[in-house]
Amino acid sequence: MLKINECINFNERSEFKMDIDFIQRLKKPADTKIVLLVLDGLGGLPRESDNLTELEFADTPNLDYLASRGICGLIQLVGAGITPGSGPGHLSLFGYDPIKYQVGRGVLAALGINFELRPNDVAARGNFCIIDENKYVLDRRAGRISSEKNKELCKLLRDINLPGVDVFVETVKEHRFLLVLRGEGLSGNLIDTDPQEIGKKPYHPKAFSPEAEKTANLIKLFIDRAYEILRDQNPANMVLMRGFSQKPDLPSFKENFGIKSAAIAAYPMYRGIAKLLGMHILETEKKIENEFTTLEDNWNDFDFFYLHIKECDSAGEDGDFHRKVASIEEVDRQIPRLINLNPDCIIITGDHSTPSLLKYHSWHPVPALLMSKYCRSDNVKRFGERSCMTGGLGPRFPAVDLMPLALANVNRLEKFGA
Amino acid sequence: MLKINECINFNERSEFKMDIDFIQRLKKPADTKIVLLVLDGLGGLPRESDNLTELEFADTPNLDYLASRGICGLIQLVGAGITPGSGPGHLSLFGYDPIKYQVGRGVLAALGINFELRPNDVAARGNFCIIDENKYVLDRRAGRISSEKNKELCKLLRDINLPGVDVFVETVKEHRFLLVLRGEGLSGNLIDTDPQEIGKKPYHPKAFSPEAEKTANLIKLFIDRAYEILRDQNPANMVLMRGFSQKPDLPSFKENFGIKSAAIAAYPMYRGIAKLLGMHILETEKKIENEFTTLEDNWNDFDFFYLHIKECDSAGEDGDFHRKVASIEEVDRQIPRLINLNPDCIIITGDHSTPSLLKYHSWHPVPALLMSKYCRSDNVKRFGERSCMTGGLGPRFPAVDLMPLALANVNRLEKFGA
Repeated sequence: MLKINECINFNERSEFKMDIDFIQRLKKPADTKIVLLVLDGLGGLPRESDNLTELEFADTPNLDYLASRGICGLIQLVGAGITPGSGPGHLSLFGYDPIKYQVGRGVLAALGINFELRPNDVAARGNFCIIDENKYVLDRRAGRISSEKNKELCKLLRDINLPGVDVFVETVKEHRFLLVLRGEGLSGNLIDTDPQEIGKKPYHPKAFSPEAEKTANLIKLFIDRAYEILRDQNPANMVLMRGFSQKPDLPSFKENFGIKSAAIAAYPMYRGIAKLLGMHILETEKKIENEFTTLEDNWNDFDFFYLHIKECDSAGEDGDFHRKVASIEEVDRQIPRLINLNPDCIIITGDHSTPSLLKYHSWHPVPALLMSKYCRSDNVKRFGERSCMTGGLGPRFPAVDLMPLALANVNRLEKFGA
Repeated sequence: MLKINECINFNERSEFKMDIDFIQRLKKPADTKIVLLVLDGLGGLPRESDNLTELEFADTPNLDYLASRGICGLIQLVGAGITPGSGPGHLSLFGYDPIKYQVGRGVLAALGINFELRPNDVAARGNFCIIDENKYVLDRRAGRISSEKNKELCKLLRDINLPGVDVFVETVKEHRFLLVLRGEGLSGNLIDTDPQEIGKKPYHPKAFSPEAEKTANLIKLFIDRAYEILRDQNPANMVLMRGFSQKPDLPSFKENFGIKSAAIAAYPMYRGIAKLLGMHILETEKKIENEFTTLEDNWNDFDFFYLHIKECDSAGEDGDFHRKVASIEEVDRQIPRLINLNPDCIIITGDHSTPSLLKYHSWHPVPALLMSKYCRSDNVKRFGERSCMTGGLGPRFPAVDLMPLALANVNRLEKFGA
């Protein structure tokens, strides 16, 4: 039916990329180590006064040293113009196509508070909200009630019993909570009840497919009971639910890359994502230098370390240029400790940009460097947004390709084909 | 069934490229404006005397100013080595995968002469040609007969009546004409009758699928009658038909990007492509400065303006280096008027290269600049082929990603994932 140039073709997809199965089949063992150091929200935008980004302004002799010895570029986590959430950003860094492998919002909420999800659980993100007497939404976040207030309300909601399943209601932060149903025959394939706009009524729970009917009915019961319990509360008097989802069955990091991996992250969300991929989670403390100590202490036991630094993102989200600079400089001061461990390959990058100018995640590609004995260094001498643009990885390197590249650099990938 | 950000999707194929549905689901409203200025055939090749392309030779202080403030690169419309026609080139600029969404040659011919196609019409491109007494093709273009001669022949062919359908025969240019059948139950799924070589006989109309049988029979009748009418004409004595096709059902620009769009183009083909996507077509006059006046006059009424300048391509096709330079300089002189409107995002590029050295469309990637307050400017200071190679968009930026990038820059895309 298709005549090229002549017909319209709406069904075929254009496919280009190496998928993860392809890499899986090329993996081979080696006695070599990789460190992936993620500065959350690393990328920035130039401020007006001196046209410098946070990273460009920062004094980073050690990162610059690695950049000058390594191969640099800017990485694209999802695609041009796409602002990655932390989930997709990290999956991409770990070599998982973030459009193919999506982790639901409910699951991420559970990961974020260290709630131990079981394979059949259905998790959802809840908002405490305000509705009027006719059930129209007045405020989707109930004026961002305090986490303390949230805890009181969660306690009330724990009185709800549903037939045949266990119900967990947990405080996340401010107006946000986690709902988990545990039992047999559940599915996350439901619509959100959150209408995403004020002036609308919450949607009724509805299944997208027959296997989710049971869950939809249970959620309906939950919401009706929640309304009875909350209706006389002030200000929050109702709940809105989003992102019903189950723990995804991701191919493990070990399965994909044949590598014994460990995660060092102070925040639960990032430990949670690493755990989804089967990484070993190392206990660590919040300070940056402590995370590097954890790395040193466990150096002999793993082949791959994911080291997550949250501070740059938090400073960016607060719009604090200088705090972001300071957090980058603090990481820079720890770099000699990393170099002293003599890893076979170091990658330093971020999971997305968080320019302090925007105070939020952004779509801009993120500076990245990869250093190994065999990386074929480029001419970049400085680790920064504009300097990395001209590096050997190019200005739009797909983040999902970093893992295969790192594996190659540490002799962990077979030749493809004869 | 897929809820973006919420569900896990393991069944889909690994698709690296973001498809248009993905962008659709991330769109959000904002009170911001984008201008896409297309200099048709912008890209060139260096001439021997001074090794400069038309754009490199041209004096373009205003384009250079935008380049120095923006992010630059070379865009690839379809793929490496692929020379885009105007249809695919524009679809790609508009964010539509030009391989997935193909517009038939017959439909493009109709758009090019402003013929108003209805949804069930079947359109085809015809050539007046010369065949010998045994029906072997001697000249597929009948020596490129004049458009005047073409009009005479079309008038003769309009005597043809076919059962149950209306028949339209319209002059395009020289040996080229448009045939449209209008009626029920038609399909464009036929082989071309044009054998594409001399010394062969025209192919018999044949359906690729059962629903096109009726159309094939009607075309057979048309061709038999056309031969009876033309056989004693000189030089053209037969017709060859190509690109049977129907108006494609493309997702609209509004549907994809949530943006109120207008097209300013002096030539029917470009208005036609914009119309296919549901853009509002603004009346304009042929001179470059008049097109900018149209932009100014309608500034308040739309969020997105596509402004098409034909002159660079025409000069390139004539092999006229200096006329192409002059047309670029003429556009440059109008740029301050564009800047004065204070758009939130400006994109300036072309739909393909037309080097005056080659006198035809070429496969070379095309200089592009994107300017917005948040574009993260690169180090490019000059708008030209070689200067853009080192820009932040890179030397092979997929044109299809320009729209998502522009939307991000004007705050019209949601974050992907939590």
